[in-house]
Amino acid sequence: MSRNLAVSPARIAADIDALAAITDPNRPWTRRAFSPLFLEGRAYLENAFRAAGLETRIDAAGNLVGARKGRTPGIGTIMLGSHSDTVPDGGRFDGVAGVVVALEVARGLEEAGIELEHDLEVTDFLAEEVSIFGVSCIGSRGMAGVRPDEWLGRKADSMTLAEGIRDVGGDPDAEQKARDDIRAFLELHIEQGPVLEGETLDIGVVTAIAGITRVEIIVEGRADHAGTTPMNRRADALAAAAHAVLAVETLSSALAATPGHFAATTGEFEMWPNAANVVPSRVRMLLDIRSEHRDDLGDFLTSLEAVLEGIARDNGVSIAPPRLVSDNPAMPMDDLVMDALDAACQTTGAGHRRMASGAGHDAAFMARIARAGMVFIPCRDGRSHAPEEFAENADIALGAEVLLQAVKRLDTQLMEQ
Amino acid sequence: MSRNLAVSPARIAADIDALAAITDPNRPWTRRAFSPLFLEGRAYLENAFRAAGLETRIDAAGNLVGARKGRTPGIGTIMLGSHSDTVPDGGRFDGVAGVVVALEVARGLEEAGIELEHDLEVTDFLAEEVSIFGVSCIGSRGMAGVRPDEWLGRKADSMTLAEGIRDVGGDPDAEQKARDDIRAFLELHIEQGPVLEGETLDIGVVTAIAGITRVEIIVEGRADHAGTTPMNRRADALAAAAHAVLAVETLSSALAATPGHFAATTGEFEMWPNAANVVPSRVRMLLDIRSEHRDDLGDFLTSLEAVLEGIARDNGVSIAPPRLVSDNPAMPMDDLVMDALDAACQTTGAGHRRMASGAGHDAAFMARIARAGMVFIPCRDGRSHAPEEFAENADIALGAEVLLQAVKRLDTQLMEQ
Repeated sequence: MSRNLAVSPARIAADIDALAAITDPNRPWTRRAFSPLFLEGRAYLENAFRAAGLETRIDAAGNLVGARKGRTPGIGTIMLGSHSDTVPDGGRFDGVAGVVVALEVARGLEEAGIELEHDLEVTDFLAEEVSIFGVSCIGSRGMAGVRPDEWLGRKADSMTLAEGIRDVGGDPDAEQKARDDIRAFLELHIEQGPVLEGETLDIGVVTAIAGITRVEIIVEGRADHAGTTPMNRRADALAAAAHAVLAVETLSSALAATPGHFAATTGEFEMWPNAANVVPSRVRMLLDIRSEHRDDLGDFLTSLEAVLEGIARDNGVSIAPPRLVSDNPAMPMDDLVMDALDAACQTTGAGHRRMASGAGHDAAFMARIARAGMVFIPCRDGRSHAPEEFAENADIALGAEVLLQAVKRLDTQLMEQ
Repeated sequence: MSRNLAVSPARIAADIDALAAITDPNRPWTRRAFSPLFLEGRAYLENAFRAAGLETRIDAAGNLVGARKGRTPGIGTIMLGSHSDTVPDGGRFDGVAGVVVALEVARGLEEAGIELEHDLEVTDFLAEEVSIFGVSCIGSRGMAGVRPDEWLGRKADSMTLAEGIRDVGGDPDAEQKARDDIRAFLELHIEQGPVLEGETLDIGVVTAIAGITRVEIIVEGRADHAGTTPMNRRADALAAAAHAVLAVETLSSALAATPGHFAATTGEFEMWPNAANVVPSRVRMLLDIRSEHRDDLGDFLTSLEAVLEGIARDNGVSIAPPRLVSDNPAMPMDDLVMDALDAACQTTGAGHRRMASGAGHDAAFMARIARAGMVFIPCRDGRSHAPEEFAENADIALGAEVLLQAVKRLDTQLMEQ
């Protein structure tokens, strides 16, 4: 399928390949935030931003921003962006595709001689992935004014986060202020799931970034000699935990079959004493629960607690009520932006659907201070955070074209708001 | 209940208390084989053996042996014994009760002026528990001539097992020879299970030491993003493994309800990548299977393999056939010895039953070279290998009396064989 695009697939491919080459050679593709390789990637991007006619700066939060003035001063900014840092042994597209596409939209507009009413900014957010400091979305939290102050004292590799932000060119000492001039924010990202590929669609217009809730379950049984304790005299914490794992799966699958994204995973599972000849005495489970609708989360936790009581009773173990470790509610995307993205898909002929994002993104923080929206593009087998992560360049380019068309539409619509 | 015993409960209590005092004070009760504390315990026992009129020696395998000549030279030995080493944070009775009781039988015979036809030997076997060298029953294996030669090169705490055996007074360089003069071997041990206590019985006459089979199961699923991968598109290794854990429990419980000891435990369980936001990709389970009857083991493994095939199919994961890691078949005890022990229980008025041992013991190796038997005495809540391990002194003393009576009976019966 050949389309008449305002963006250049070849330039997108060249940028993605150039950034892929900036990696720890022994662990492709690794370019973690705050590392020398990260700064090398940033230098590449800064040059590319400038070559596209953008005026570059590092903001106080450590984000690389490239700006293009609009025709009407003072009416605010339309921002596009994502992140260029990777997880260890990560992929070439997670984050990078969104930054390169944002840049390509600016180049495409410039080449087509299109002046926007609004200022346009292209942003590479600092440290979207969980960084060496153990926290994520450092740059977008900072831009939204919600980066916890105590994070600045966090230490890793014998430096503090404050020093890390200073090293990339930010100003950790500046008073943190939420940007209030951003009228719309758009981010392209690989789906990191199998839905678009499975349905042979080009674009997912994101409806919300699902909430992430972490819940801990502790099962306490009794350590007994595995050889001498009769089967019917045991309080086996592992057997009880196995019932709990299956209950999590069953309850979650039922909610996943109703409208709105829902998924629950027992991602961490540890057992004690973990010795061949001892009946397991204790299990710790950590659940990762993603919910688009808050009611689903409530239903899940209520049902789970009741089921766990029955499991404890039936297995002669004790299970405390699930303990909430962290809870970040879902962040809905903006209706005007979603409509603009749908319309852009129509214009470009992209097969599209609406869908929630199960993963967290910088857009979740930008949604606190701006009308925000995201588009997903397909990725192979839904794989990400792994070297085999892959997205077709044609799919990325089509996503860029959708963003460009959406930006043009929003530039007009926001004038009327 | 006061009984007219040939043995002295007070002497037994004094010996057990004296050995309990020889412990790492910060981790009662810890007296691991090859440690200075172990040698201190051995010194106590050697003195006590001598005070009882026994001639002491350390054999080539590192066992402490106290001997009393019988009336008829050359007809062989009746041996009693167990072990004085403990696990870390172990108890005061596991092994120790058997050594002290063996000594007390010798003292009781001496005091009563009873001369046996056979030589009598009292043995403290070296390192019955899993030692710093990672292996167990080192002394009884050596006496039975089945201690693998390559074990001598095993290293721990910067010494080899050969050096460890030399340090306790053994001779690792001597050619290993199975003793061929032992006509009967008897061992008293705490049950390490809840059966006798539950049935308010004094003595368990052991029918067999259950086989110990270790089987590894590997479940291979697929690591996926926990937020973005729909519930129905996962190959969750943990969910599949949970089904496997429950299948092990169900199959094992069914076999436990049939005649003959059977128990299977998922004692080790590890999961990868064990990260909150990643669908589990791999689980390793290690099963500990104890079986008195070989057929039960076969039935279990056959049924398990079929069930695992179904689990793999239903959950979209792969599960290789269970891999046999180690397999030590059950060791039956000797009929003549069991009958003598039953009769001794009758004589002393001890409430008794026959039962298999789910745990391994030195008697399993002695059974290779002699008619062997064991008696169990009750222990509180079935607990062992823990500081709270406890046995009533009256129960230990009654066990000693049963052994003494059985020795007298066997001394006569073996002359007629």
